Amino acid sequence: MFREIAIIAPGAMGSAVARRLLEHGIRVTTLLEGRSVESRRRADDAGMIGVEPTRLVEADIIFSIVPPAQALPLAETIAPLLRQSHRKPIFVDCNAVSVETVTRVAGVIEASGAPFADAGIIGGPPVPGGAGPTFYMSGTPALELDALNDVGLQTVVMEGPIGTASALKMSYAGITKGLTGIAAAMILAAVRGGAAASLHKELGLSQAQLLQRFGKSLPDMYPKAYRWVAEMREIAAFAGDDPASARLYQALADFYETIADDYEGPQANTQAIDDFLRLKD
Amino acid sequence: MFREIAIIAPGAMGSAVARRLLEHGIRVTTLLEGRSVESRRRADDAGMIGVEPTRLVEADIIFSIVPPAQALPLAETIAPLLRQSHRKPIFVDCNAVSVETVTRVAGVIEASGAPFADAGIIGGPPVPGGAGPTFYMSGTPALELDALNDVGLQTVVMEGPIGTASALKMSYAGITKGLTGIAAAMILAAVRGGAAASLHKELGLSQAQLLQRFGKSLPDMYPKAYRWVAEMREIAAFAGDDPASARLYQALADFYETIADDYEGPQANTQAIDDFLRLKD
Repeated sequence: MFREIAIIAPGAMGSAVARRLLEHGIRVTTLLEGRSVESRRRADDAGMIGVEPTRLVEADIIFSIVPPAQALPLAETIAPLLRQSHRKPIFVDCNAVSVETVTRVAGVIEASGAPFADAGIIGGPPVPGGAGPTFYMSGTPALELDALNDVGLQTVVMEGPIGTASALKMSYAGITKGLTGIAAAMILAAVRGGAAASLHKELGLSQAQLLQRFGKSLPDMYPKAYRWVAEMREIAAFAGDDPASARLYQALADFYETIADDYEGPQANTQAIDDFLRLKD
Repeated sequence: MFREIAIIAPGAMGSAVARRLLEHGIRVTTLLEGRSVESRRRADDAGMIGVEPTRLVEADIIFSIVPPAQALPLAETIAPLLRQSHRKPIFVDCNAVSVETVTRVAGVIEASGAPFADAGIIGGPPVPGGAGPTFYMSGTPALELDALNDVGLQTVVMEGPIGTASALKMSYAGITKGLTGIAAAMILAAVRGGAAASLHKELGLSQAQLLQRFGKSLPDMYPKAYRWVAEMREIAAFAGDDPASARLYQALADFYETIADDYEGPQANTQAIDDFLRLKD
C-alpha cells in the first residue's frame, strides 16, 4: 500500500490529483523551489507538502505531470537524486509525450536504478467529490500501480511495454484535440469567406452532435492552446512513421500557436469563433 | 419554369440528381463522348439523354458536377459553345472547389455572356424516393434557381457573391472529411503503437458518438479517398489566408493519397482500420 506520493508539478492537473489522493489518506509531497506564486497557492490549497529534492525521493511513487517539453528535463533533474537514494520509488511519467520521448525519459530514470512506468492521463483534472480522469499505465512496474484504484485514482494497467500508454494518450488526444483544431480552422475560414451563418445552420441540421460539441470544446481550448502546441508536436513525432500524419500534426501545432498568440493578444480569432458559436439559426 | 437541364458528368452524384429531376418531369441531357462504359450505363439507367455539345447549351441550366480538378477545364470547353449560342443557360458550378477556383471558372463562363452561379452540394446523392443533398447557391443568377425546389432539388439561395457557396462547401467538408482523416491517421498510429484495443475501449467510454460515427465514416471513405485528395487541396487553397490551415489540409491531401494508394493495392491500412472498428471491448 502507498503512504506517500510525490507529484511534480502542482499545476491544474497535479494539484487536483494531489487533493484526490489526500482525501484517501495519502501524504503528497512536491517541489516548490522556483515555482510561481500561483503554483505555491495551488499546492497549499490542495494540502501538498513542499519538500527538498532529496526528501522528495523518499516517496513510494513520483508522478511527473508537467508540460510535454519539461518531461525529459525533469527526469534528468530527478535521476541523480534517485541514484543516490536508498529508496527507489516508481517514477511515473504521466505526460502527453511521444513514444520516442517517453522511451528516452525511461532510459534516464532506469539508469538510476528506479523502476519506471509510462502513463497517459485521459480526461480532465479530478473534480472534488466528482469524476476524475483515467490513468492508463504500461511497463512492468505498472502492475504495482493497480493499487492506485484504492486511493481514488482510476487506473488501468495495460498489457504492453513502456510507450503503450503514451501511444494511447497520443492517439486519443490526436483525435479529440485534432477535431477541435480543424473545427476552429474551418470556422475561421468560413467567417473570412462570408459563409459563417450558413455553415452554422447546416451543421445544426446535419451535424448537430458536432456543433453541440464545438460549443464547449472550442472556448475550453483557447486558454490551453499554448500547451497544445507542444502536445501536437509530440503527436507529430508519435505518428512519424507516416510522414503525412506527421505533417498534419505539425500543421495543427502551428495553427494552435496562432490561436494562442491571438488569445494572448487581440483575441480577434477567438472572438470570431465565439460569435459563430452564438449564432441563432 | 425549367424544362431541360444539362448535367455534366453522369457520375454517382450527377446521375442521381438527373434521376431526381426526371421524376419531376425535367428533361436531362449530358455529354457521353469519351466517357467510360460505366458512366454511359449510369446515364442510361438514370434516363439522361446523351447529346452533342452544341445541343447541350440549349438547356435552361447547365450543372457542372465533376471532380475538383476538372471544374476549370470543363468550363473552358463549354464557354466557346455558350459564346456561339443564342440561348444562354445559367451555368452552375457545383464542384468542391476553392473560392479562388470558382472565381476563375466564373470569369471563363461570364466572358461567354452566360450567367454563372456558384453552388455547393452538401450531403450524398439523392436516394430514389428518399432524402437528397442540399444545393447551396450564391451569386446574383442564383436567385432564379430557387425554383429548383419545385423540381425535387432542395436548394438554398445564399446572400453573398460567387464564392460564398463554395466557402460553405469547403468549410463544411473541411470539418467532416478532416475529422475522418485525423481519425484514420490516429487509429493507424495507435495500431502501430500497440494501443488499438485501449483506444477503442476508451473512445467507447468517453467519445461514444465519435466512435459510432467512425464505424460508418471510415469504411465509406476508402473508395472516395482518391477524390478527397483533390478536395483537400482545394480546401488548403480556400484556407490559404492562414498558412497553418493551408498546411493542415495539404497534409490531409497527402494522407488521403496514402489511403487511396493502399486501397488500390495491398489494403493493409484499410484492413487495420476495419479490424480496429470491429473490436469488441
